[in-house]
Amino acid sequence: MSESAPTRPPPTDREQRVLQIIETARAKRARFRDDQITLAHGAGGKATQTLIEGLLVPAFGSETLQALGDAGGVTIGGARLAMTADSFVVSPLRFPGGSIGELAVNGTVNDLAMAGAKATALTVAMILEEGLPSDVLRAEVEAIARAAQAAEVEIVGGDTKVVPRGLADGMYLSTTGVGAVDPRARLSTAGLRSGDQILVSGPIGEHGTAIMLARDQFDLDAEVESDTCSLWPAADALLGCAGEALHCLRDATRGGVASVLNELARASGVGLVVREADVPIAPVVAAAAELLGIDPMYIANEGRLVAFVAREAADGALAALRRVAGCEEAAAIGEVRPEPPGMVMVQTAFGGRRVMDQLVGDPLPRIC
Amino acid sequence: MSESAPTRPPPTDREQRVLQIIETARAKRARFRDDQITLAHGAGGKATQTLIEGLLVPAFGSETLQALGDAGGVTIGGARLAMTADSFVVSPLRFPGGSIGELAVNGTVNDLAMAGAKATALTVAMILEEGLPSDVLRAEVEAIARAAQAAEVEIVGGDTKVVPRGLADGMYLSTTGVGAVDPRARLSTAGLRSGDQILVSGPIGEHGTAIMLARDQFDLDAEVESDTCSLWPAADALLGCAGEALHCLRDATRGGVASVLNELARASGVGLVVREADVPIAPVVAAAAELLGIDPMYIANEGRLVAFVAREAADGALAALRRVAGCEEAAAIGEVRPEPPGMVMVQTAFGGRRVMDQLVGDPLPRIC
Repeated sequence: MSESAPTRPPPTDREQRVLQIIETARAKRARFRDDQITLAHGAGGKATQTLIEGLLVPAFGSETLQALGDAGGVTIGGARLAMTADSFVVSPLRFPGGSIGELAVNGTVNDLAMAGAKATALTVAMILEEGLPSDVLRAEVEAIARAAQAAEVEIVGGDTKVVPRGLADGMYLSTTGVGAVDPRARLSTAGLRSGDQILVSGPIGEHGTAIMLARDQFDLDAEVESDTCSLWPAADALLGCAGEALHCLRDATRGGVASVLNELARASGVGLVVREADVPIAPVVAAAAELLGIDPMYIANEGRLVAFVAREAADGALAALRRVAGCEEAAAIGEVRPEPPGMVMVQTAFGGRRVMDQLVGDPLPRIC
Repeated sequence: MSESAPTRPPPTDREQRVLQIIETARAKRARFRDDQITLAHGAGGKATQTLIEGLLVPAFGSETLQALGDAGGVTIGGARLAMTADSFVVSPLRFPGGSIGELAVNGTVNDLAMAGAKATALTVAMILEEGLPSDVLRAEVEAIARAAQAAEVEIVGGDTKVVPRGLADGMYLSTTGVGAVDPRARLSTAGLRSGDQILVSGPIGEHGTAIMLARDQFDLDAEVESDTCSLWPAADALLGCAGEALHCLRDATRGGVASVLNELARASGVGLVVREADVPIAPVVAAAAELLGIDPMYIANEGRLVAFVAREAADGALAALRRVAGCEEAAAIGEVRPEPPGMVMVQTAFGGRRVMDQLVGDPLPRIC
């Protein structure tokens, strides 16, 4: 990389003790012990992880699920496929830069892209609230159709259920996608290696900020549009340029870049160092995050990926990524270290260093 | 078949006029003109058809959807696959003979089976209501796991969203399944041919009746269990016995056997005649239907299929079906005629004859 690797002063005794305590906590198997479901279980952070790893994965006992990737791999009729599912409960249904229908297509297309697969077929299941104006439904059906066309994916099936007034918030959508895994792809959540460079495909936090502004929850006279888009072109460019040197792709949705990095550090048993000053972020997003008291690294994106590329291929991969429409501001934001395993450290702009932990609670509910 | 084809007296002038009027209405393209969504749009009858054929299929412009099968066909990586999606909003979540989790697996496994495909991979997306007791969730996760194991399908992915208290009814599930299409399968909604015999795999109406009883909506001291089960063994037996002589399979879920027959009569441009006296039905289901004033032919099933088999292969197919566990009471209930195209006629037990039209409205909301 053109950026020199950050030099790291030896940790103090206190820092080492703190790290040890966190490492011990991390090494424990997640257990689901809550009495009831809270909004945090849907936020993509620690509670979601506990639910998935502590209840769902053990119960379903599937090897594919153990990998905890964005999409499951499955071989059917001799073809190596990726398959993924997502639900969408965003509020409001429409927001600057997108809507629930567009999100539902791009979200699933992107989960497949992160598994190295171009989406071929999509299903759309709709849960509609009794009394939903037909115009609202029509607009979302059209948004789904447009997004599917843009992503070159065929809608092959669907389902419609209606629940009584009050028992949904207009509409909820569930989409599932299937695609063939690209032969160039050797991607894995456990594939991060020491020295890998961490790339991000563009400015972060715009989707979550756009939703917040659309909710009029705080007084900010600014315009931010959701980043929702298909990430296949970016994944395709990275696969084409880096091939097997591309170790992992992940879209930074719920819980933001911070949550993705934490998940992957744990899955690969490596440490990650992020250079805060190198993370691209629009001033208006930074301002909104400050007003709300949220680190923008935890704000959701719906059209931004994080890529892990072997050091020798990283410069080329970043250049290739920047040539993709919408990824002009892609940046290298950090690298993989052998330790501390399972943890993400941030080098602040002021030269300090801190742990960037998983998201706790749900500061921004229902952003997708 | 062993039953002789029913002889049909020539229609009276009045009957012919009525048929002509209905035929003309049927030939028109469905248009979605409602101002807002009603429960009827989710009931599987006429309103659902209008929504699907009048809005969704034209907007999504997919050839696969035009076929209006239970599952879409798609070729990925050289493999001929079937793919299907379903949402589940049943109330209550548990009922005699099953629960929403079991329903969600079997419903999707069955849609694939009706396309001649054994389910290989399944995704489960959950929309949970804030405050849902964890024990309720755990029970459904275990029901999903058990049903998946029974159907020999792997759960390869999923998603969890949480919506605020009041904005869902405990939980909604969406499942999607993929499987390879069996090489023996030549199934199509447009495949019905004059002379085909109509088989049903067991007594009808038990699922919907079990749900009604579980809701305590009326005073009936009877026990009925849902028929929810995987229909792949039945589909497999029929494919093995009848091969290409098996023209179409359909599970009779929302809207019951009557709605399925109407859909298929329209898709194939044929007339269907059903012998009411030959339709297997448990006395308690018949009694419940009578009390509620509903024709049991419109009550939902979650483990019953309707098969269309060429006349010469029908006896063997029925015998093969009856050897499948749970299908001992399978029966031949009618046959395909060249006309009136798009219509279903019932020969009543008393020798009369009437049109069995599509379901209008939603007498039994949220049965799946």
